[in-house]
Amino acid sequence: MATGKKYIYFFGSGKADGTGTMKDLLGGKGAGLAEMTNAGVPVPPGFTITTEVCNLFYELGKRVPEGLDGEMREYMGKMEAALGGSFKFGDSDRPLLVSVRSGSKFSMPGMMDTVLNLGLNNETIQGLIRRTGNERFAWDAYRRFIQMFGNVVMGIEKDQFEHIIHEIKKKKKVSLDIDLTAEDLKALVDKFKVKVKQVTKRDFPQDVWEQLIMARDAVFGSWNNPRAITYRRLNDIPGNLGTAVNIQAMVFGNMGDTSATGVGFTRNPSTGAKEFYGEYLTNAQGEDVVAGIRTPHPIVDLDKEMPQVYKQLRDITNKLEQHYRDVQDFEFTVQEGTLFMLQTRTGKRTAHAAIKIAVDMVKEGLISKEEAVLRVEPASLDQLLHPIIDPKAKIEVIAKGLPASPGAASGKVVFTADEAVRMAKKEPVILVRPETTPDDIHGMDAAKGILTARGGMTSHAAVVARGMGKPCVAGCETIKVDLKAEKFTVGKVTVKLGDHITIDGGTGRVIIGKVPTKDPEVSGDFGTLMSWVDEIRTMGVRANADIPRDARMARKFGAEGIGLCRTEHMFFAEERLPIVQQMILADNTDDREKALAKLLPMQRSDFKGLFETMEGYPVTVRLLDPPLHEFLPKREELMVEIAVMHAKKAPKASITKKEKLLHRVEDLHELNPMLGHRGCRLGIVYPEITRMQTRAIIEAACELAKKGKKIVPEIMVPLVGIKKELQNQKDLIKKTAEEVMEKKGVKVEYLVGTMIELPRAAIIADEIAKEAEFFSFGTNDLTQTTFGFSRDDAGKFIGYYTENNILEKDPFQTLDQEGVGALVQMGVEKGRKTRPNLKVGICGEHGGDPASVEFCYRTGLNYVSCSPFRVPIARIAAAHAKLKEKGVGGSVSK
Amino acid sequence: MATGKKYIYFFGSGKADGTGTMKDLLGGKGAGLAEMTNAGVPVPPGFTITTEVCNLFYELGKRVPEGLDGEMREYMGKMEAALGGSFKFGDSDRPLLVSVRSGSKFSMPGMMDTVLNLGLNNETIQGLIRRTGNERFAWDAYRRFIQMFGNVVMGIEKDQFEHIIHEIKKKKKVSLDIDLTAEDLKALVDKFKVKVKQVTKRDFPQDVWEQLIMARDAVFGSWNNPRAITYRRLNDIPGNLGTAVNIQAMVFGNMGDTSATGVGFTRNPSTGAKEFYGEYLTNAQGEDVVAGIRTPHPIVDLDKEMPQVYKQLRDITNKLEQHYRDVQDFEFTVQEGTLFMLQTRTGKRTAHAAIKIAVDMVKEGLISKEEAVLRVEPASLDQLLHPIIDPKAKIEVIAKGLPASPGAASGKVVFTADEAVRMAKKEPVILVRPETTPDDIHGMDAAKGILTARGGMTSHAAVVARGMGKPCVAGCETIKVDLKAEKFTVGKVTVKLGDHITIDGGTGRVIIGKVPTKDPEVSGDFGTLMSWVDEIRTMGVRANADIPRDARMARKFGAEGIGLCRTEHMFFAEERLPIVQQMILADNTDDREKALAKLLPMQRSDFKGLFETMEGYPVTVRLLDPPLHEFLPKREELMVEIAVMHAKKAPKASITKKEKLLHRVEDLHELNPMLGHRGCRLGIVYPEITRMQTRAIIEAACELAKKGKKIVPEIMVPLVGIKKELQNQKDLIKKTAEEVMEKKGVKVEYLVGTMIELPRAAIIADEIAKEAEFFSFGTNDLTQTTFGFSRDDAGKFIGYYTENNILEKDPFQTLDQEGVGALVQMGVEKGRKTRPNLKVGICGEHGGDPASVEFCYRTGLNYVSCSPFRVPIARIAAAHAKLKEKGVGGSVSK
Repeated sequence: MATGKKYIYFFGSGKADGTGTMKDLLGGKGAGLAEMTNAGVPVPPGFTITTEVCNLFYELGKRVPEGLDGEMREYMGKMEAALGGSFKFGDSDRPLLVSVRSGSKFSMPGMMDTVLNLGLNNETIQGLIRRTGNERFAWDAYRRFIQMFGNVVMGIEKDQFEHIIHEIKKKKKVSLDIDLTAEDLKALVDKFKVKVKQVTKRDFPQDVWEQLIMARDAVFGSWNNPRAITYRRLNDIPGNLGTAVNIQAMVFGNMGDTSATGVGFTRNPSTGAKEFYGEYLTNAQGEDVVAGIRTPHPIVDLDKEMPQVYKQLRDITNKLEQHYRDVQDFEFTVQEGTLFMLQTRTGKRTAHAAIKIAVDMVKEGLISKEEAVLRVEPASLDQLLHPIIDPKAKIEVIAKGLPASPGAASGKVVFTADEAVRMAKKEPVILVRPETTPDDIHGMDAAKGILTARGGMTSHAAVVARGMGKPCVAGCETIKVDLKAEKFTVGKVTVKLGDHITIDGGTGRVIIGKVPTKDPEVSGDFGTLMSWVDEIRTMGVRANADIPRDARMARKFGAEGIGLCRTEHMFFAEERLPIVQQMILADNTDDREKALAKLLPMQRSDFKGLFETMEGYPVTVRLLDPPLHEFLPKREELMVEIAVMHAKKAPKASITKKEKLLHRVEDLHELNPMLGHRGCRLGIVYPEITRMQTRAIIEAACELAKKGKKIVPEIMVPLVGIKKELQNQKDLIKKTAEEVMEKKGVKVEYLVGTMIELPRAAIIADEIAKEAEFFSFGTNDLTQTTFGFSRDDAGKFIGYYTENNILEKDPFQTLDQEGVGALVQMGVEKGRKTRPNLKVGICGEHGGDPASVEFCYRTGLNYVSCSPFRVPIARIAAAHAKLKEKGVGGSVSK
Repeated sequence: MATGKKYIYFFGSGKADGTGTMKDLLGGKGAGLAEMTNAGVPVPPGFTITTEVCNLFYELGKRVPEGLDGEMREYMGKMEAALGGSFKFGDSDRPLLVSVRSGSKFSMPGMMDTVLNLGLNNETIQGLIRRTGNERFAWDAYRRFIQMFGNVVMGIEKDQFEHIIHEIKKKKKVSLDIDLTAEDLKALVDKFKVKVKQVTKRDFPQDVWEQLIMARDAVFGSWNNPRAITYRRLNDIPGNLGTAVNIQAMVFGNMGDTSATGVGFTRNPSTGAKEFYGEYLTNAQGEDVVAGIRTPHPIVDLDKEMPQVYKQLRDITNKLEQHYRDVQDFEFTVQEGTLFMLQTRTGKRTAHAAIKIAVDMVKEGLISKEEAVLRVEPASLDQLLHPIIDPKAKIEVIAKGLPASPGAASGKVVFTADEAVRMAKKEPVILVRPETTPDDIHGMDAAKGILTARGGMTSHAAVVARGMGKPCVAGCETIKVDLKAEKFTVGKVTVKLGDHITIDGGTGRVIIGKVPTKDPEVSGDFGTLMSWVDEIRTMGVRANADIPRDARMARKFGAEGIGLCRTEHMFFAEERLPIVQQMILADNTDDREKALAKLLPMQRSDFKGLFETMEGYPVTVRLLDPPLHEFLPKREELMVEIAVMHAKKAPKASITKKEKLLHRVEDLHELNPMLGHRGCRLGIVYPEITRMQTRAIIEAACELAKKGKKIVPEIMVPLVGIKKELQNQKDLIKKTAEEVMEKKGVKVEYLVGTMIELPRAAIIADEIAKEAEFFSFGTNDLTQTTFGFSRDDAGKFIGYYTENNILEKDPFQTLDQEGVGALVQMGVEKGRKTRPNLKVGICGEHGGDPASVEFCYRTGLNYVSCSPFRVPIARIAAAHAKLKEKGVGGSVSK
């Protein structure tokens, strides 16, 4: 190699060229093998071709750098030496067999290629037979090799080989591979070779070096196979890392009863308990454990079968756990009584186990609190905070929608909100709708879960359900809801009113019938860990909550205030909606004010409840936001009703009444309500609404202040895009607040701020900050307008986009840092330029998404606000962001 | 004045302290008086208190700077001296009377206050009687003074005085002021004084200096009266300019038959003809000319009555026009045979006159071509390019909507597009709809004009009508359209199918009946001026055109290419829509491709027509943009239809058929179609659409290329927000184009670019420019998403916003430079950072708005593209922008 660059790293004889920290260059497996070798762990010798070679391989048009083949021969020599010179690659007398395996920085299990038993050919097979004295073993090894090499390297379909095996078994009238004799296997090898020639028009390679080079290039090539690409996309693994190739002396667990192979964990990966966990098979190869043909034994049984080996294994794995300071997932083989470790890596675990292990390891003095916190993936907590479907239950999944709000629920199907309220008094119900609107809130409240045919991850159903902490499967486009016939169909399955279904909002599954669900326990370890989380993080976490019940839940989950109270949700209660409608249908200010006067005491009492629950913590109240027609009957339903009344010649007076209502609904009808007369545009055109809401807020605060309770309400003006919009509303609020305080004879502090949820607001944030005393980024709406995506409609193409890699992630779930994030950053910078101490938060759905929380921390936000159920996730994500900034620990393993 | 600052400027005796260039400081009137005085024009002497004093007046809390009153006394002395010492302010024997007038930099006619005849009191009236020997004149002057001062300075309602005059006339049984005797007028003065005391609780001030100071402060105060504020807002006049106060010796045109007063123009302001134009009254004061009680005479008659004066007036005004190098609008008074000029200013003129005057003055050598171009306000051209309502016609306006597309049209009312097509074969029709959709295109095409009850300036109806160059009144919310009853109502007026109406799309008026319209001539001067425009401007102007007919019109109006061809408009033809629907309703790719194959030859032939018309000029073709459901029947109408069929027990098969259609419509239904599955999102999910459209474009170009015609189509991908969206479509386009060219055996050049119409696209323009070969800013959509305003729905509040000064201008008409403009600028800068020669244009409606065109020029765009009818406006605006940058000439007078 002219460049002098080191492309190959050796390991063996207790010493390796590399170390465990060189995952970038050697991949996880290669680094692990080097580290184990250096630590004196018995590892079959071998060498690793670096990930750099993989990248060069692609740069050079699928060719390795010149000279690499020669260098491999040198290293093969070292390997032979490490084995004491007893075996030689390609030697017909004492053949050395090797494995060729991929291994990238992050584990991508099963995604890339592996070839075992490489080095066998028509000559070396004889040596293997001689050396082992086990003809059947040798022929089995050869046929496995041809099969694997043929498939992986030469691209022959697996079926082609399986078919031949099947034929031979049929002929011999046996059912298991193990029943085939050495003769049979030898015949199989011949037939396989014929098949290879037939499919590829070439002979199966007999030159072991040709075998090795072909296998190496196949492994490099597998880095970019479609399933590896998909896996990387789903797991956020960059495509430019490349894979290393590990070439290692084969050891055999299938050389008789003193041989075995197994896998294990140093702690229980499901519960986190500190117990030796795993399984093994005697006289078997690794793939047999996975294939499930024979049932493996629990690893503790090895103590009885091979006590010496067991003890050595426990010692080694204990040492490895101590060494790596984390749970190890390991593979081993015992060849004729000798233990070899083939792999060790950080063990994947459930959220439950992750917490227990992290807390235990701190107690054991193995890791610090900071490391413990980093060991828990924030998003995984979601599993812990909601009921799940009993994993042991047998279920029939009939459809799959979007996992819109986690948790599982069973109940009888209902199709209207009113029916939901009625039936829920007797038994649990699932509300099924084409889509939900604010009209359905009372039904959603009554139901155990919600299923919709339309709408995305941030559709009305999804947002409200998450707010309520209720399971929801949204945008389940394969179900056809027929409201009139009170049924829904999926293909040939029909589900009628009153039938049982179960939904799993964590996976999007819709299941026929009643399925047992279980509430996973949140152990005391959870509380311990969260207390460390709160010691570490510096960014605040608030919750979005509209009613005292939600506020209490938010407190339970550790929220430090309310970042968003959507006052319109107070308008939907059964007894209030008619008054709200009266207000909307008023055709003059006087009548509107009369209706508002009736709503005032109701809102005031809601605010009092909210303020009392959150005493000592800030409460941000957003003024009325949605377009008014959301509170009225649907236009198309009225149109249908009236047409039918005409067709059926209903009394004229009743038709006229409906028509009058339709007229007003038509007046308010909008083609794109998301971009219509809503947000502060309402409070500007109808100042009496802002006045009433301000009165309710300030009166509630004054009344509590008189009782000695300190409340600082933060009044938030929605959908501001023009400085004068905020000026107008702020003037109105200040004037009203002064009047109320004058009348109540008590002064309370309050702030007036705004949502930044339109691109224009971010662009002119310096101007807006002249008026705003705080900012809260409404990243749902900001995502909608920045992308021009309606959250209700984007389901039609966003799925296609993420599947086809046009978008990495659904931007309604994870904040789009490149576009929307650029506006958030611009908003923060410009806002603070005007008002250096400006309090800035986020109250979109992203407030509960870990990657977005990290972005918020980096961007200097004071707090994030999210659904009560996601508060713990946001807290831990905020702690991770802080630690990442401080440079503590690595990231959680992928 | 301690500061030594000069606050007062004198004019008189042929010499003035100021000059005509000092409009900022002296206001237009003051500067004009100074300039005229310096030029030897006979002007009554006086002095001007500067606009700086006005600003100080507000800074000091409505007080003038100390010492000003004393300084005014000095200047009054100078004025008396200039009058030869014959008159003295407040002198009971030879009283000097003065006028007190406002005058700001820009003329604001009638908006601020004026007081005449100031200096009269119970003593000086006697001197005036003695001096003039005309008791009636003197008492009339005194009562006019009390009336004016009482109203303007003391705030007494005009009615209060009028009522007293009315009473006295009733008592004397006369009907005209002129019939009142000196005695009557004297009695009136007494009654007026009593009224003043009664209303204001103080006597009418007798001290002439108190009168003067009060009047001065009232004039300063009138700068900020509501109507002045509104006028400034409407005319883009800054609020911080302030007004000057002009105090000038009174001259009287009502001192007998050798006295007269008049107004005039140096050229005809209506036609532009070089003729002396104006009117006068003998024995009258200026206000009498305006009041219309006596009919004034044409100014040329003055030649007969007072030939000496007439000659002097012609000489003076000719000199003024030469001096100012523009048409003058002047006021004069003849007092007992002596001519005084009271004012001269730039004369306002019609667009027609403006062009003629500008061209004539170049021919006369008075101004340069550049100046001539600057003399024509771009927006005013709109008047010239469309038919208008005959100004002499008597009309009954029944409603007023938005002036959505200029021009007037009369015709019979129809309520459906089909009816429009049917009836239009016999006679002109006006299509009246609640709102239009693409379904209505054929009806809009057949109608003479369009009237809608809903939708803003950029609603579908407005945009399409402007594109077609057809009159449209949109968002006329007071009309209630009843499609079923085939009528519309406005208050108590009902208009039925077949009734005649006239709409004026230039003003938004809806008129009952058939009103004559006239096509204003576009004179040869227009062509001359536009040729100078094209010599000056450097930015290109293209047109938005979808069909060869529009393209021909665009060429006629001077477009240098097509900046936007909306291919979907080709889908709406009667014979094509069913095929488009077949394509949409296809539930698999095969069926969709079959339908597309039928559309291919149709689109190809359209493109050929377009390319042939625009030969030598670029044509930008936008791929399919609107959501597919726009091509299908409306959801709510189908729902009604089906419900009625059920109610009437229609045959099951026909119901099922409709229901199936509804199902597909429901599938495609979107809550916010503007943010839905449209633009490139269609071509990505249904690549066969992009393939078909690319084939049609490239095949057309290839076929023409074979005939030796060079076409460089610019294929534009709409609604890109993510780089990979453009990559995806570009790959598809390139591949398809290569295939076509291969097959056709000919190579054509083509470009692939994108619309920048989403905030995210502007933010990541550097990334997008890696793929895009050109950018075109779609500022309609960009305005929608930046503000979060739906152009279809914003009518509900945008009117309120502009009226209440929350927004200065409708951002759909004039580009919002602060917000949307910031994104455009970002897009241009980032795009050119990646690709320095990136061709950038704009194809939103703003391309035809002068202020927006100037912004586009400043921002470095290569071209603007607009409706064919606005091309001349854009051309002249582009020339203005260029001249402004070069610092040539001032702006057009306000």
